[in-house]
Amino acid sequence: MTNPEYAKPRATRRGFLTATAGLVAVAGSNFAPGAARALDVPQGAGAEAAKTTEPFWGAHQSGIVTPTQTHTYFAAFDLTTDKRQEVENLMRAWTKAAALLCAGQQVEIPGKDNYEPEPDPADVLGLSPSRLTLTFGFGTDLFVKDGKDRYGLRAHRPEAFVDLPHFPGDQLAPARTGGDLSVQACADNPQVVFHAIRQLAHLAYGVAQIRWVQAGFNSDYGANRTPRNLMGFKDGTGNPSTTDPKEMDAVVWAGDEAPAWLHGGSYLVVRRARIALEHWDRMKIAFQEQTIGRKKLSGAPLGAEKEFDPINLDAKDANGDPIIPENSHVRLAHQESNEGARILRRAFSYNDGANFTAERWPPWRQGMEFDAGLVFICYQRDLRSGFIKIFEKMSRFDMLNQFVTNIGGGHFVCPCGAAEGEFIGQRLFEAAS
Amino acid sequence: MTNPEYAKPRATRRGFLTATAGLVAVAGSNFAPGAARALDVPQGAGAEAAKTTEPFWGAHQSGIVTPTQTHTYFAAFDLTTDKRQEVENLMRAWTKAAALLCAGQQVEIPGKDNYEPEPDPADVLGLSPSRLTLTFGFGTDLFVKDGKDRYGLRAHRPEAFVDLPHFPGDQLAPARTGGDLSVQACADNPQVVFHAIRQLAHLAYGVAQIRWVQAGFNSDYGANRTPRNLMGFKDGTGNPSTTDPKEMDAVVWAGDEAPAWLHGGSYLVVRRARIALEHWDRMKIAFQEQTIGRKKLSGAPLGAEKEFDPINLDAKDANGDPIIPENSHVRLAHQESNEGARILRRAFSYNDGANFTAERWPPWRQGMEFDAGLVFICYQRDLRSGFIKIFEKMSRFDMLNQFVTNIGGGHFVCPCGAAEGEFIGQRLFEAAS
Repeated sequence: MTNPEYAKPRATRRGFLTATAGLVAVAGSNFAPGAARALDVPQGAGAEAAKTTEPFWGAHQSGIVTPTQTHTYFAAFDLTTDKRQEVENLMRAWTKAAALLCAGQQVEIPGKDNYEPEPDPADVLGLSPSRLTLTFGFGTDLFVKDGKDRYGLRAHRPEAFVDLPHFPGDQLAPARTGGDLSVQACADNPQVVFHAIRQLAHLAYGVAQIRWVQAGFNSDYGANRTPRNLMGFKDGTGNPSTTDPKEMDAVVWAGDEAPAWLHGGSYLVVRRARIALEHWDRMKIAFQEQTIGRKKLSGAPLGAEKEFDPINLDAKDANGDPIIPENSHVRLAHQESNEGARILRRAFSYNDGANFTAERWPPWRQGMEFDAGLVFICYQRDLRSGFIKIFEKMSRFDMLNQFVTNIGGGHFVCPCGAAEGEFIGQRLFEAAS
Repeated sequence: MTNPEYAKPRATRRGFLTATAGLVAVAGSNFAPGAARALDVPQGAGAEAAKTTEPFWGAHQSGIVTPTQTHTYFAAFDLTTDKRQEVENLMRAWTKAAALLCAGQQVEIPGKDNYEPEPDPADVLGLSPSRLTLTFGFGTDLFVKDGKDRYGLRAHRPEAFVDLPHFPGDQLAPARTGGDLSVQACADNPQVVFHAIRQLAHLAYGVAQIRWVQAGFNSDYGANRTPRNLMGFKDGTGNPSTTDPKEMDAVVWAGDEAPAWLHGGSYLVVRRARIALEHWDRMKIAFQEQTIGRKKLSGAPLGAEKEFDPINLDAKDANGDPIIPENSHVRLAHQESNEGARILRRAFSYNDGANFTAERWPPWRQGMEFDAGLVFICYQRDLRSGFIKIFEKMSRFDMLNQFVTNIGGGHFVCPCGAAEGEFIGQRLFEAAS
């Protein structure tokens, strides 16, 4: 699918291009991005910026324990090169560009083969960085694809970076699944997240191309209030505390069990979970609450009063039946049901319009249904004792499954963060050199 | 595509339904929505609400001259009934529900055939109304479809409500085009707009079903600052003043030339304009500015200094050539180029992911491209002297066309507003009775 011509800027495309006064010389690698010159309006300066800027450099990548923003744009890329050096150069360029973007700077794409650089689209000129974070991940295919060690990285694939099993009910469309590299943009503005991915995709021309993308959002319900997802239930109540480093070390960050290059990194699972909202909306609230295992209004576990009350899985009603049903979502997701397995959920809702659906059950309706649901995203220290452990049971028994279909996604290993001057994934590439 | 069974609530769908304690009796028509009882948490009260609530009742429909919100969700519906009374009942129910939604109230869907009502999904419980507006329109097919006077409304179709011609370059996919009814939700929150359409669609079961939907957004650039679209240019600078009633009477609101039922209404054109962002991003800024006819940074017309400086179409450069090119967007859109034709633009950006595109020109790239662009929306007093007049020339000559493809949309006549107790479109249905 790669056309070698495409890597060259088409400076005379369709003959409309007009000459500009000055050429901008860009030193160094073809990939090195710089702040745009032609429209150089500094953003992100001063006290206002501090409130709207998340740090990019650090021991961990941003966007994992960062307080969740209101918008996301997730992109999976396929590499089209067979040269490891080009992948490394891309990560170097992406890192540099990501730091600029998160600081609210524009990113100019260097010209290749002595062509002039291409300016930032400037569509976010005048907006704050909006707490933009960019989080990078590597797919299993980066290490080995179809049995082939494409980039000499096979030996460095972590033992814990297993393939995901096929879970009952999975209907993952290949075109929406997997990818060699992932980049997740999160920010408090839908234009800012798209702008960031658009510039990173532009920067990757000739080396990597988009495989699939997914936008998502969360509403801002106010400080310390758990957002509601499209099913109307509070989503994220049971999460571990992202402000407790010990908790994050236990649940999220890879430690000594992982290869050295991954210390401080994490494993990401993303799933596009379409929700049959038309069906859900016809269910009684009491039924919905039995399905979830929580009260709709308060978010309290069934049998409790308040949202953050402990979940008592042993509580029984007068008949001796469990108050929180055996096949309820909250019970099956709970660590007590999964030998202590825990993950950090960082989910968004998605809303991709409507499309034609022919149903497989009465009343066999044929017509348009909303293509909306959840961009389920979670991070964990180990996939096997995290998402896989939990979802093996959940995919079989969760009452919620009748309303939810996983139709795409992937899993990626996210390296640790980078100090200024380093690049994301540097330790992996150094280990393999 | 209509299955008569679907009009009946499936109270025992898949056998999972659990009994609830009390039945909720809903008086009157099957369509009459009421505020939800089971989760009755009042919203939209007090001073905070005043800032986040747009009035629904009034001489004009809301959402037309209302200051543009940051999010929209546009839905076109096909009617599946052949009874005019059912269409009238739907408009009555939609109006009542819309007033509740815009006030931040929940909407319960009445049970049909003695089934229990279906509760509001409650996914916006805890959010403010977020300046929600709902704007209703009628398609040409409501008046006559395939030559058939479906509802006895043919004689009441305004003379000015003509079919749109095929414009050069139009690539309107039927599944994304047209519709008998339109509803546009606008609000400062993506979940609020979707919630509103979701409830109106639910309310329409058995009478109307979604044909196509389109979400959109604008970033909030701050008070009195024109937002930038995805091309990076300020969008809406040349709009007439929505705070000047005389201007709006001249440009937007249908007057005595229209049938009595339409006085105070307007004509809406919506187009899903996909933008080839990957190509646009490779163009020099100077070329982009020649294409638009404005400066990218300031938004000033070429040859001027400031965004709101007058556009001088007669200005020439040293060679005697026009400073604002003959085929630039701003010149072709200008009233001086179109015998005084003016419209009120109310556009949003859209971002629907990426999909596979095979290009028709060098370098014949095959691959994923962003499915993003503009939800072009405009209102006008008369289509013929508004959008049609302007776009007949623009579709032929605008340099911007090489980057923009219209792939769907429609045109609708929006009746005047309703006083409390009336319903939107009431005067049309009364005229036809």
